[in-house]
Amino acid sequence: MAVNLPPLGELLVVPGVVLGTAHAGIRKAGVKKATTEQTPRDDLVVIALPSETTIAGVFTRSAFRAAPVEIASDRIAAGGIRALVINSGNANAATGEPGHVDALAVCKAVADSLDAPFDAVAPFSTGIIGERLPVAAMVRAVDAACGRLEPDHWEAAARAIMTTDTQPKVVSHQVSVDEKMVTLTGMAKGAGMIKPDMATMLAFVCCDADISTECLAGLTREVADRSFNRITVDGDTSTNDAFVVCATGCAGHAPIQSRGCAGYAVLRDGVALLATELAQRIVRDGEGATRFVTVRVCGGASSVECLQIAYTVAESALVKTAIFAGDPNWGRFCMAIGRAGITDLDPTRVNLWLNDVRVAEAGLVAQGYDEMAAVQVMAQDEFEIRIELGRGMSEEVIWTTDLSYEYVRINAEYRT
Amino acid sequence: MAVNLPPLGELLVVPGVVLGTAHAGIRKAGVKKATTEQTPRDDLVVIALPSETTIAGVFTRSAFRAAPVEIASDRIAAGGIRALVINSGNANAATGEPGHVDALAVCKAVADSLDAPFDAVAPFSTGIIGERLPVAAMVRAVDAACGRLEPDHWEAAARAIMTTDTQPKVVSHQVSVDEKMVTLTGMAKGAGMIKPDMATMLAFVCCDADISTECLAGLTREVADRSFNRITVDGDTSTNDAFVVCATGCAGHAPIQSRGCAGYAVLRDGVALLATELAQRIVRDGEGATRFVTVRVCGGASSVECLQIAYTVAESALVKTAIFAGDPNWGRFCMAIGRAGITDLDPTRVNLWLNDVRVAEAGLVAQGYDEMAAVQVMAQDEFEIRIELGRGMSEEVIWTTDLSYEYVRINAEYRT
Repeated sequence: MAVNLPPLGELLVVPGVVLGTAHAGIRKAGVKKATTEQTPRDDLVVIALPSETTIAGVFTRSAFRAAPVEIASDRIAAGGIRALVINSGNANAATGEPGHVDALAVCKAVADSLDAPFDAVAPFSTGIIGERLPVAAMVRAVDAACGRLEPDHWEAAARAIMTTDTQPKVVSHQVSVDEKMVTLTGMAKGAGMIKPDMATMLAFVCCDADISTECLAGLTREVADRSFNRITVDGDTSTNDAFVVCATGCAGHAPIQSRGCAGYAVLRDGVALLATELAQRIVRDGEGATRFVTVRVCGGASSVECLQIAYTVAESALVKTAIFAGDPNWGRFCMAIGRAGITDLDPTRVNLWLNDVRVAEAGLVAQGYDEMAAVQVMAQDEFEIRIELGRGMSEEVIWTTDLSYEYVRINAEYRT
Repeated sequence: MAVNLPPLGELLVVPGVVLGTAHAGIRKAGVKKATTEQTPRDDLVVIALPSETTIAGVFTRSAFRAAPVEIASDRIAAGGIRALVINSGNANAATGEPGHVDALAVCKAVADSLDAPFDAVAPFSTGIIGERLPVAAMVRAVDAACGRLEPDHWEAAARAIMTTDTQPKVVSHQVSVDEKMVTLTGMAKGAGMIKPDMATMLAFVCCDADISTECLAGLTREVADRSFNRITVDGDTSTNDAFVVCATGCAGHAPIQSRGCAGYAVLRDGVALLATELAQRIVRDGEGATRFVTVRVCGGASSVECLQIAYTVAESALVKTAIFAGDPNWGRFCMAIGRAGITDLDPTRVNLWLNDVRVAEAGLVAQGYDEMAAVQVMAQDEFEIRIELGRGMSEEVIWTTDLSYEYVRINAEYRT
C-alpha cells in the first residue's frame, strides 16, 4: 500500500565505507515476515569505516531505550567508532542486563572479525521488543558479513534492515565542498512506530566529508529536526530510534571545523536533502498508508505552536480516517485545531486550505466553498493541508499518512 | 459492537423535572443515521426546570467552542436557568455569528412556549460541525416538545440526543441526604470524539437536591474529574462537550451550602456514581469497540504522571490494535510507557499486569511469564492493564477501548 514510493535511484559508493550482509535467522519462526521478502533473507549488516571517520547520532528519548541504543550512544559519544552492526527481526529492547551482554557479544564478534578495538563497534537493532537476541547465530552471521564487505552493498544492506517496510529505502547525493565532490549515501527503515523524537526507527548516512566530531554532532541534530523529526505515521515513538551520520574524511577538502566554515552549510543541506528524502519514504511506506499528506501550519506565533497544531491534526484518528475516506471534513479539522492546546487561539482568524481549495475562512466554511473541488484534492495520492493561524510569522511543515483498514490489519496481525 | 452495555434499568422521576421530545428532521438527508434508529426519530429535547433550580456545567476547552457552548456556559454562569434545549444531528459548531443567532432563536422559541425569560434557556447541540441549524423546523419541534412535557420521558430524551451511539445511556440512583431521599437521573450521549476535558459530548444529570449554585459548581467539577474526564476512545475532544448538573431543590432536606455540609459528600458521591456509570457506557459504546479496558497506573510520583502514562498507553494506536488482536504485546506497552514524557522514569522498576497475570517485572518479561494465560485475559470482553511505576503512592484509573476495523469503517463512512 506504499504511496508513490520512488524506485531506487543510482546508489553511489562512499569512499572508505564497505558493507556486508548475512542471514542469521533472527526473526522467530512463525512471526510475520516483511511483506515483499522471501525467506531466508539477510537480516544482519556490518558497515566498516576507516579509522579517521567522525560520527554523530541522535537517539530516541524513550525512557525504555533499548540496550543497543544505550551502547551505541555511549560509544559514539566516546569516539573512535570503526564499525556499525545492525540487525532486523529483534529490537533487543526491554531485555535488561542480559540484553546488554548480548549486544556486546555481537559487537565483540565484529571487533574480532575486523581486528578493531572492542569498543569501536556500535550496535543497532530493530524488530520485536522483549526477546533475547539469538547471539550464537548472529556471531556466525557477523563472520559471514565481514567476509563479504564491499563498497557497493548499500541496496543489500537497506533490504537487510527492513521489518514491516515494503521496500528498501536508500538514496545517494553529491555536493561540492571546497571544489571537491563529497558523496553521501544513506539508508533508513521504518513503517510503524513512527513519530517525532526520532521518527524513523533506524537511519544511517555515510559520506566522505572531512568534518570534526563536534561539528558533525551539531549538523546531525539540525538535520534530524528538519527531516526525521517532521514525520508521523501513528504518533508512536520506538525504543530503538536512531539516526547516525558517519564522515570518512576521504574527499580531500579542507576540514570543516566550525559551523562558520563555508562547507558546513553545503554539507548540512546535502545531508538534510538525503534525510528528508528517506524520511518521506518512510511516510510513503507508512503502515497501511493510502495517502501522503503534507500538513503546513503558517501564521503561527511560534514554531512550537505550529508544530503542536500540525501534529494534533496529523495524529487525530478522526482526521486520519477522514483522509482515508477522502472526506474534506472541516468539522474534524477544526476539532483537532481546537484541541491542540493553544488556549488563546482566535478561531475567527483561522483559514484552512486543501491544496488551492479554500475550505474554511475566518473559522467558518469559506464563502463559495466548492466541496466537489475539495473532494477531488483529497482523491489524489498526495496533497497539502494548509492551516493559517493569523497570529504571526512562524511556519512548520510535517508529513503524514491516513488511517486505513490495512493499518489495523497490519498491527493486529504483526507478531502473533 | 458495544461491549457489555447493560440494559436500561429502572428510571426514576426527578421531582420538579419534566421532559419533552420531538422530531425536527435536523440531520441532513443522505447523512448516515445512528445504527439502531429508524426514521423519523425525535432529535430535539426540552427539559423544563422549576424556578428554584440551581445548575452548574463543565464545558469543552476546545479553542473552537460551538455557539451553543458559549451561550450555555454564559447563561449557566449568570443563573436563573429554567430550561435546557438539546438537539442531535447538527453541532452548530464553526458556524460563527450566524450560529449564535440560530441558537438564540431556538432558545427564544423555548422561552416563549414555557413563558420563561429569554435568557433562562440554555442550548446544547451535537452532530455535524460547520453547518447551519434548520431553525424553522426546530422552532416547530420546540413547540411540539413543550406540548408533551412529562416527568417520565427520560428514555425518550436519551434516545433523541443520540448520534453514533448504538444505545441510549440513561441511569437513575438515589441517595439519602439529611434523612430525605434524593433522586438522581442522568443521561449522556457520545461514542466518538471522546477524550478528557469533557470526554462525553453531552451529559445531563438532574436531581431534586437542595444545593447552592457555588457548591454545585464545585461538585460538578469534582465529579467530571472522576468520571467523564477519565475516559478516552480516540483521544479527540469535541467542540461541544458539556456536562450539566441541575438540582431542583424539591427533596426537602436542609440546603447544602458549603463543601463542609454532611450532605455534600453524599450527593457528590451519588452524582459521581451516576456519572461514572454514564461515562463507562460511553466507552462501552465506543466507536467500533470490541473491548472495555481499564488502565490503572499506580506507584506514580504524582497523579499527573499517572494520567500521562495511562493516556499515552490508552491512546497509542499500536496498543489499541494489540488489544483488538488480543495480543499481550509487552513491546508495545513498554514503547508507550517509554514515550509518555516521564524523563526520569526508571524502566527497571516498572511492572505490568493483565488482570492477575504478571507480564513484565522490573522492565523485563516476567520470570515464568505465561503467555497463554495473558492471551486468555485479553480474549475477554473486559480486563485491566495495571502498570506499576515504583516511584511513589499516586494511582489513577481510566477506561478505554481498542482500535478495530469497525472504528475505521464508522469514521471513514460518517458524513459523506
